[in-house]
Amino acid sequence: MEKNALYAQSGGVTSVINCSMYGVVVAALKSKEIDKVFGAKNGVSGLLKEELIDLTQEPRETIEMLKYTPGAALGSCRRKLKNEEDFNRLFEVFEAHNIKYFFYNGGNDSMDTAMKIHKMAQRLGYDLKVIGIPKTVDNDLMFTDHCPGYPSVARYTAISTFEATLDVRSMSYDSTKVFVMESMGRHAGWIAAASALLKKYEEEGPHIILFPELPFDKERLLNKVDEMIKKFGHCTIVASEGIKDEKGNFVSDMGTTDVFGNKQLGGAGLQIANIIKNELKLKVHTAIPDYLQRSARHLSSAIDVQEATAVGIKAVDLALKGDSGYMVTIERVSSEPYMWRLGKVGLDKVANQTKTLPEDFIDSERLMVSEKFIEYALPLVQSEDNIDRWKIPNHYTKFNWNMVQKKLPEFEL
Amino acid sequence: MEKNALYAQSGGVTSVINCSMYGVVVAALKSKEIDKVFGAKNGVSGLLKEELIDLTQEPRETIEMLKYTPGAALGSCRRKLKNEEDFNRLFEVFEAHNIKYFFYNGGNDSMDTAMKIHKMAQRLGYDLKVIGIPKTVDNDLMFTDHCPGYPSVARYTAISTFEATLDVRSMSYDSTKVFVMESMGRHAGWIAAASALLKKYEEEGPHIILFPELPFDKERLLNKVDEMIKKFGHCTIVASEGIKDEKGNFVSDMGTTDVFGNKQLGGAGLQIANIIKNELKLKVHTAIPDYLQRSARHLSSAIDVQEATAVGIKAVDLALKGDSGYMVTIERVSSEPYMWRLGKVGLDKVANQTKTLPEDFIDSERLMVSEKFIEYALPLVQSEDNIDRWKIPNHYTKFNWNMVQKKLPEFEL
Repeated sequence: MEKNALYAQSGGVTSVINCSMYGVVVAALKSKEIDKVFGAKNGVSGLLKEELIDLTQEPRETIEMLKYTPGAALGSCRRKLKNEEDFNRLFEVFEAHNIKYFFYNGGNDSMDTAMKIHKMAQRLGYDLKVIGIPKTVDNDLMFTDHCPGYPSVARYTAISTFEATLDVRSMSYDSTKVFVMESMGRHAGWIAAASALLKKYEEEGPHIILFPELPFDKERLLNKVDEMIKKFGHCTIVASEGIKDEKGNFVSDMGTTDVFGNKQLGGAGLQIANIIKNELKLKVHTAIPDYLQRSARHLSSAIDVQEATAVGIKAVDLALKGDSGYMVTIERVSSEPYMWRLGKVGLDKVANQTKTLPEDFIDSERLMVSEKFIEYALPLVQSEDNIDRWKIPNHYTKFNWNMVQKKLPEFEL
Repeated sequence: MEKNALYAQSGGVTSVINCSMYGVVVAALKSKEIDKVFGAKNGVSGLLKEELIDLTQEPRETIEMLKYTPGAALGSCRRKLKNEEDFNRLFEVFEAHNIKYFFYNGGNDSMDTAMKIHKMAQRLGYDLKVIGIPKTVDNDLMFTDHCPGYPSVARYTAISTFEATLDVRSMSYDSTKVFVMESMGRHAGWIAAASALLKKYEEEGPHIILFPELPFDKERLLNKVDEMIKKFGHCTIVASEGIKDEKGNFVSDMGTTDVFGNKQLGGAGLQIANIIKNELKLKVHTAIPDYLQRSARHLSSAIDVQEATAVGIKAVDLALKGDSGYMVTIERVSSEPYMWRLGKVGLDKVANQTKTLPEDFIDSERLMVSEKFIEYALPLVQSEDNIDRWKIPNHYTKFNWNMVQKKLPEFEL
């Protein structure tokens, strides 16, 4: 009887999540045990709706292009499995298509989903190997040195902050003196922290980082901005979107509504800019890279590309060895030179956990990273991925969406 | 007697303005007629204050690094010369330092300043050769095929828009369906237009461009968003920061003030996002790259790097041939293959003029560029500048700011 695998993508995307898909498909194609690899459209949503494509039937060229395609080529979803009915349906789909391997590529929510599916399989006595593949720009998964996707967004953030600081430095004499950049990271400051990875001297940007791990302290911020302006004439601030005040309210929610009663536009970055404009009467520019930071395949770290591919291959290897209920992890062997190996951790351990910046990754002044963070992150971001950036549109994966024949009745989501 | 040259930078910066400085310095060093090249700190402001550095005395390594340094290495300024007193002072500085050549690197305001200096020199009978060097990401200078700085920001905008559209495509099933990116360009839509340079098919981003040349039409926008969502499930909109309504009011000023009476945060991009959220009830993400777009040396077009350097060299050549009162221009010889030569135009013609997008560069539906624009811009952006992006911080110019000995009394700005 056929033994098929299923791969799906979930949650916010990265510039290298499709490298993991590439790893899964290539490893599965090489194996003798796996007959077909199906891809579910839009994560578990497509799975519930039995919307599958046969990745092993896709032209090899399409599969190769996954390496250059940011975002989730199969489509992602934010859905969690809700109830018994959802789980039952899932196993009907697995059974109908002889799915014996399930690879779920996502963050901590997705690892929770994968864990539940693994447990359900055990309960039902259904032979299913479930392996989670880590992915998140937020870098907030536990038990892995870092998450695929993070080195690339870190590289983007470091280079962009450095460049933009040279810009505001130019303008600061009689125009803009403060540049604020809002970075992603609702619960953890890993991305904001990465903005300092190219900084060598105090005068280089960023001059201030606002972490979501620490309560926002307006006076501390204003004093530091003032100090930097006096010292260097300009100041670059990187603010994590998730910064909160002492009461735990998001800074992005300050100001609340406009004259029409609509919620005030913009997030933490614009609020910080506004505070500085009002209190220090300085000209401020604000950048919100938003999706640009996590889709920037043109700046992906070569190590990230390699690792993201490797975790996909490893997921297949683990499943073929009979493992189930694990997430693939990246283990650091050494920082200098940077060396890594792959490992695994039980899904129950990583599910729904958030790894925030350790206290000793933030310096004593609480507005900058420590040397320890630099030692951690620097090896991940330095490697140049030599691609012709203009060729990206010729190199992105477009599936034909030739759907696998459905075998089950329709299912209402 | 010594014959010295003076170079200064002005206005908003680009990722390649220092390439023009590089061209000026190297050409001047090679010439026998020019003894020293001074750089004025912060444009005409530093010039008035007699704040000069001797670029010919800088280590060659510092000069070489100009090629990799975004922003204005000498500092820029927004200052215009105000009155007779300013002009008199300027010529005192010229005389005190034997300045016989003046190179001003900037946009249309700066060309106006350069023109006035040229005319004043003629009136005074002071032997001064004045040459303007074009620079602006806005691409709005007349009489030049395009402006150095534009090809790079165009490349950044095209690649970023394409990548982010693959991101929102991934998310659109049950999360974000609309992605809005705000581009620079207060008066002209050249940068916004460039977002379409990688688009080959209707489903690829951007799906909508909002140009400052056309009055903002809310119904037209909403209808098109609705159409794109129905057709492709997601929609990317690039909005120029300078879009205005029919009465000429900036869209960025809509909404006006918040509950505290402060001016509403954010510009055109956030206003457009808000309209779509409110009217179509769709989840929207917004990116405001701001300075990131114009300082992105990591994505500079190789042709832009070459041309920006060449216009600097040409400025010196013209001045040495005795020309004065001109701006260097780029003339297109052919689009396919792309070939160019340098020319010149009278400063009086370019000063204070703005070149907006021609009508036939916008398509008939008025929400997208035409094929003609693509033919114009595509040759400028495709070339990859093969630099190791992580090395940027090791390659940026840091002057020692060893100032030339002042010879005149202090001057109050």
